[in-house]
Amino acid sequence: MVRQERAVRTRQAILVAAASLFDEVGYEAATISAILKRSGVTKGALYFHFASKEELAQAVLASQLDAVPAVPPRDLALQEALDEALLLSHLHSTRDPLVRGSTRLTVEQGSAKDGLDRQVPAKAWLDHTVAVFEKARTRGELLPHVDVVAAATMFVGSFMGVQVLSKIMTDHADMPERVGELYQHLMATIANPGALVGMDFTPGRGARTYEEAMRLTREREAEEDDGPGEDGTAGAARSTAAAGVRR
Amino acid sequence: MVRQERAVRTRQAILVAAASLFDEVGYEAATISAILKRSGVTKGALYFHFASKEELAQAVLASQLDAVPAVPPRDLALQEALDEALLLSHLHSTRDPLVRGSTRLTVEQGSAKDGLDRQVPAKAWLDHTVAVFEKARTRGELLPHVDVVAAATMFVGSFMGVQVLSKIMTDHADMPERVGELYQHLMATIANPGALVGMDFTPGRGARTYEEAMRLTREREAEEDDGPGEDGTAGAARSTAAAGVRR
Repeated sequence: MVRQERAVRTRQAILVAAASLFDEVGYEAATISAILKRSGVTKGALYFHFASKEELAQAVLASQLDAVPAVPPRDLALQEALDEALLLSHLHSTRDPLVRGSTRLTVEQGSAKDGLDRQVPAKAWLDHTVAVFEKARTRGELLPHVDVVAAATMFVGSFMGVQVLSKIMTDHADMPERVGELYQHLMATIANPGALVGMDFTPGRGARTYEEAMRLTREREAEEDDGPGEDGTAGAARSTAAAGVRR
Repeated sequence: MVRQERAVRTRQAILVAAASLFDEVGYEAATISAILKRSGVTKGALYFHFASKEELAQAVLASQLDAVPAVPPRDLALQEALDEALLLSHLHSTRDPLVRGSTRLTVEQGSAKDGLDRQVPAKAWLDHTVAVFEKARTRGELLPHVDVVAAATMFVGSFMGVQVLSKIMTDHADMPERVGELYQHLMATIANPGALVGMDFTPGRGARTYEEAMRLTREREAEEDDGPGEDGTAGAARSTAAAGVRR
């Protein structure tokens, strides 16, 4: 069990080091040796987890959704969608390596021969957003005419662009504010008035939601440490994933 | 005069060749020799116009707004803003080299040492959109509370992201439809109801507006050819710019 936990931590350290390098210099310019140096792991350990730089980058892309700690349940599903967007904006603005690195890999086209599948994180966000909007529909939060898939595509796409523009103009500093504005406008076109008045669009919610999610993760971990159960490995995996986004 | 016109055409041919290569392989991987081969101009001619690949890429970035033919005047300024977005989406979906190449350069971060200023095209679009929204405000098309700068930032940013997602998922094929949807939602949050009901959001407007803009350009050129005036050079420049986006 201990060995398994160490392996999970090593894998996570490699992912974070690679993502931070991808964020700084892009996929092409990032070398395995620079990733080794930054992660502090041995060449053997890296190749035990990832066969190539391509496989490592694909793992960074796949980890995008997991890099964002789960938002605690809200009364409104639409508030959950908003808080997730604000939390993700907060992580961009505080230079979270996994979030910024995987975002850069997604947005940049690379070359055909790099073999990276940028549809993986895009589809993960689309599917996730569709699921949250379906929950909102079930709870009666959506206007009757809303097409859930079209709405999710619009939210995910426009979020990506506000990220790009915020990066260009302010290196992500104004991203929470810009995303708050975008969502305030878009939500007004899909939420029923009763749900809309119950929503809180303050940009500072991203930072607060982050603290809240981290506190819940710590509490969950403490509970798991108290009682040694069957799920030690899963607990360690969650813990390490949380460490990846903790500063 | 003839020599000047030829110089303008050569410069444009280099810009288009460079942009199409940037679109395909990105800034780093594009070489001057590949740009020379594709443009069919001599090395001397290229270096007469551009001192380096960096200067050439910066010129591609600066040409982004000019690569889009002017939308003919509309009754509503907001319809002009929408038609411009649909026209630009149409040019992406038909693989216009200047539009796609300059967009890729803008969105990709590159390296600090490449020295490209990605704020140039972003600011050009922001300023242009602010100007169109100011016109809309003067004509009474906007809701009273709308902050024109914030609204322009939201439109430009979200447009960029819908482009990125459409590129990832469909290689820009669904971009006119996705941008039409986005604008239909966003316009509903800034336009007064009287203006909104007068707007046409059909995605096919992009292609039609393109034909319309090209016809007007040809008519203008024909007029200029009839009467030899002081502005022969400007006419040639416009003509060559239009050729850059004509298939």
